[in-house]
Amino acid sequence: MKKVKKGDLVSLIDKNNNAYLIDTAQSTDHFKKVGVFNPAELIDKTYGSTFTVGNKNFYVFPASLYDKLKALKRKAQIILPKDASHIIIHCNITPGKKVLEAGIGSGSLTTVLACIVGSEGKVFSYEKRQDFIEHALNNLKQAHIQDIVTIKQKDVTEGIEEKNLDAIILDIPNPWDAVKHAWDALAPGGILCTYSPLISQVEDTYGEIHKHPFISLYTFETLQREIIVKEQGTRPSFDMLGHTGYLTFARKILPVK
Amino acid sequence: MKKVKKGDLVSLIDKNNNAYLIDTAQSTDHFKKVGVFNPAELIDKTYGSTFTVGNKNFYVFPASLYDKLKALKRKAQIILPKDASHIIIHCNITPGKKVLEAGIGSGSLTTVLACIVGSEGKVFSYEKRQDFIEHALNNLKQAHIQDIVTIKQKDVTEGIEEKNLDAIILDIPNPWDAVKHAWDALAPGGILCTYSPLISQVEDTYGEIHKHPFISLYTFETLQREIIVKEQGTRPSFDMLGHTGYLTFARKILPVK
Amino acid sequence: MKKVKKGDLVSLIDKNNNAYLIDTAQSTDHFKKVGVFNPAELIDKTYGSTFTVGNKNFYVFPASLYDKLKALKRKAQIILPKDASHIIIHCNITPGKKVLEAGIGSGSLTTVLACIVGSEGKVFSYEKRQDFIEHALNNLKQAHIQDIVTIKQKDVTEGIEEKNLDAIILDIPNPWDAVKHAWDALAPGGILCTYSPLISQVEDTYGEIHKHPFISLYTFETLQREIIVKEQGTRPSFDMLGHTGYLTFARKILPVK
Amino acid sequence: MKKVKKGDLVSLIDKNNNAYLIDTAQSTDHFKKVGVFNPAELIDKTYGSTFTVGNKNFYVFPASLYDKLKALKRKAQIILPKDASHIIIHCNITPGKKVLEAGIGSGSLTTVLACIVGSEGKVFSYEKRQDFIEHALNNLKQAHIQDIVTIKQKDVTEGIEEKNLDAIILDIPNPWDAVKHAWDALAPGGILCTYSPLISQVEDTYGEIHKHPFISLYTFETLQREIIVKEQGTRPSFDMLGHTGYLTFARKILPVK
Repeated sequence: MKKVKKGDLVSLIDKNNNAYLIDTAQSTDHFKKVGVFNPAELIDKTYGSTFTVGNKNFYVFPASLYDKLKALKRKAQIILPKDASHIIIHCNITPGKKVLEAGIGSGSLTTVLACIVGSEGKVFSYEKRQDFIEHALNNLKQAHIQDIVTIKQKDVTEGIEEKNLDAIILDIPNPWDAVKHAWDALAPGGILCTYSPLISQVEDTYGEIHKHPFISLYTFETLQREIIVKEQGTRPSFDMLGHTGYLTFARKILPVK
Repeated sequence: MKKVKKGDLVSLIDKNNNAYLIDTAQSTDHFKKVGVFNPAELIDKTYGSTFTVGNKNFYVFPASLYDKLKALKRKAQIILPKDASHIIIHCNITPGKKVLEAGIGSGSLTTVLACIVGSEGKVFSYEKRQDFIEHALNNLKQAHIQDIVTIKQKDVTEGIEEKNLDAIILDIPNPWDAVKHAWDALAPGGILCTYSPLISQVEDTYGEIHKHPFISLYTFETLQREIIVKEQGTRPSFDMLGHTGYLTFARKILPVK
Repeated sequence: MKKVKKGDLVSLIDKNNNAYLIDTAQSTDHFKKVGVFNPAELIDKTYGSTFTVGNKNFYVFPASLYDKLKALKRKAQIILPKDASHIIIHCNITPGKKVLEAGIGSGSLTTVLACIVGSEGKVFSYEKRQDFIEHALNNLKQAHIQDIVTIKQKDVTEGIEEKNLDAIILDIPNPWDAVKHAWDALAPGGILCTYSPLISQVEDTYGEIHKHPFISLYTFETLQREIIVKEQGTRPSFDMLGHTGYLTFARKILPVK
Repeated sequence: MKKVKKGDLVSLIDKNNNAYLIDTAQSTDHFKKVGVFNPAELIDKTYGSTFTVGNKNFYVFPASLYDKLKALKRKAQIILPKDASHIIIHCNITPGKKVLEAGIGSGSLTTVLACIVGSEGKVFSYEKRQDFIEHALNNLKQAHIQDIVTIKQKDVTEGIEEKNLDAIILDIPNPWDAVKHAWDALAPGGILCTYSPLISQVEDTYGEIHKHPFISLYTFETLQREIIVKEQGTRPSFDMLGHTGYLTFARKILPVK
């Protein structure tokens, strides 16, 4: 039975399915919403067993990607898992890939990208605001993925330094202003993705994409509906998010002479 | 500028965004819906440029995950990208993970899993039907991922040989019959996922999951709606898939004494 | 220009689009959330003009069906306009029809039915609970439709006294227990409708409907999504109701010998 | 037991739930997709019983609103019941109301409006194209509602002759061009509704509505999903209409001095 080792990133799950990430090697002993305990106490616990802090019970798990997303502290509006998941497949986010996002927000999409490209890959994140960078960096450190991510305090609409990127994801109010730079920075066959809440943002982005050599341009929205399964019967949840953002994708080609 | 090398898996994209996978090292020269040509002709072409076969034009790209899904030949009903993408995040499919699926169908989910766990990971696929195995194996070979996948002609409801799996995804008519085996085969903290079109399948699966040590049990459905952006205006597509399947997730814990 | 006459049912609309129904002939002068004024002051005001109570401004309108629904005080969960509207068309609710509903709830569906069948029609409402009846009756009186509705303190699963009804709408937890009575009470070609939040309720209702002479059996759910149109752009609302209830319809035929 | 009388509008329903409207007083005896028979044969049949034409069986019903919609022959794209139903409630379509629509299309919305306002009400329909008028008129005659409807071969963007209308519904490509005329023609408190497939149409309509005295401006879209209930289990239908049109509503006030 696998046990917690020193340096493991452990996820504590409470009865409401909240996730708290604990680095067993860290020296802090105050954990917000969990309590006070020495993280070293977790070492040699068996994964899947329970752990008690004060009067609260937790399950001890190796930290999963979804735990990292649930434990993330939100400052800005985040790209939700329902949208990030589609970005993985449609942007060809696989191990070893080199991708860029802008802006970093709270680091939610960053976390997904970093966990999927893995230690052989690289995520570059452009963000103008210092406060967002600091906040997101804390989230990345907490999730043990800071080494995969390079954050730059830069405005992506002013240029991209990297070349031959596999994918670029823009979550900024004016993605059209970065389309030319994205074309320059992408490898041929690389994917540009924009995430925009407003229809007019999608339309303006199309206008700019049409001016550059891209093919396979398409847009969709996603809806996720929870199903409540109880003793008395099954039904969709009354709560549902009516909208997040539209996802637009396009693929770089070389200029056709 | 990156060029095609011998042994590369190239994706040819036509003007309707269809994808055709070509192994530049293969000896075949008849390619269905593409035409007749020697794959070696692709070598040294620049990625992102065009390639002509007969009177048809194609773009030359490194084969992406989504290309592999689009090029897949369908025999059985497949798990669509809209659902597979959520499975990645909610099942913690990341590089190096060891996961199991049953059945293999046409190999669509298999392709997604294999591309994400990568060469450090492993996908086990249980399938009862020999014809499905053969069909799916052709799809996996075409996508150059057959080495990551071990297919077993087995009924998952009769037992799972592997241990300490990170995730198990069941796309079978009676997932409840494999819940106990899934618990046995999962590592603590590992995720069980079932994909079922019918409400009663979800309910019966809940009934069985409740008998075993699992937490974090939830179900949702996803909807994807294409947005048509044209000169004359923007609107959602009139075409939409009303339903695929319900995704259910649960996480293994150790028995609570 | 049409002016308010004594006895008119006036709708006062505030800047947040709330509706308050005022009977110009009534003697009360305290109106919750509106203020204190003599309703007779409204007489001879021009419809479409403004009316001030204290420091609050209202528009003066003839009370519409939707005003009546917005002004309705809720006690129980109500059938929302998005579902009631489909009931009109699928149950053939038109002027002069005789229809029955059970239970009355807060009188929301009752209001829709009464406004559409009109003074030539009739709505029978079966409700077990005296408190619901009193609450709903206040709503009906406020909407000036009490004469169209006959409320009976009865359990619809114990029988229906009326015959030759054009439609019967069941919003009760166990609609299957009233299916036989509904068949007895409907005219041939009349429509039975059930509104149920749970899938199992729909299934159990089907089981009972299949035992009686009905045809044209079908079920659907409806979703409504608000679109926010602002200067800065257009998008669907983030808020959305994920589920209300499933609407099932069936049509009475004579027993086939 | 109610029997068919001479002059009744009878609905014949086949086993696939298709509806065919038969006027028992009419002299034709060829009925497309039904067969050849003398409509007078229906007289004295009991409603709810079966009727055989050649080798086809039908149920005999009094023609319902929904039968009339199902029997309607389509020429143009129609406003579907799922949208027409919301128009009833949000436009205050009740018995005796006077409403206008433009254009008539195949007469689908016309049928709904006429059936609800009834013989005490009035529907005016503006349509530019003579061929649409003729086609729709045949549908209205078939549904026995032609007396409630006055069709005018006119372009609604050039003016509306009627005054004090209770509601105006615009299903034309450029509704904004008729907004001023709609304001002129509506009674205070009357409702303007536009039905438009494109977001830009909604936006342009808002731009024009904002220039005139209207309040309570809002827009929504509706989705309808069929639920398949079978012996083997229940699930939403795989088929679903992804989009029809956006419904926008606004209410006329008097100019605020």
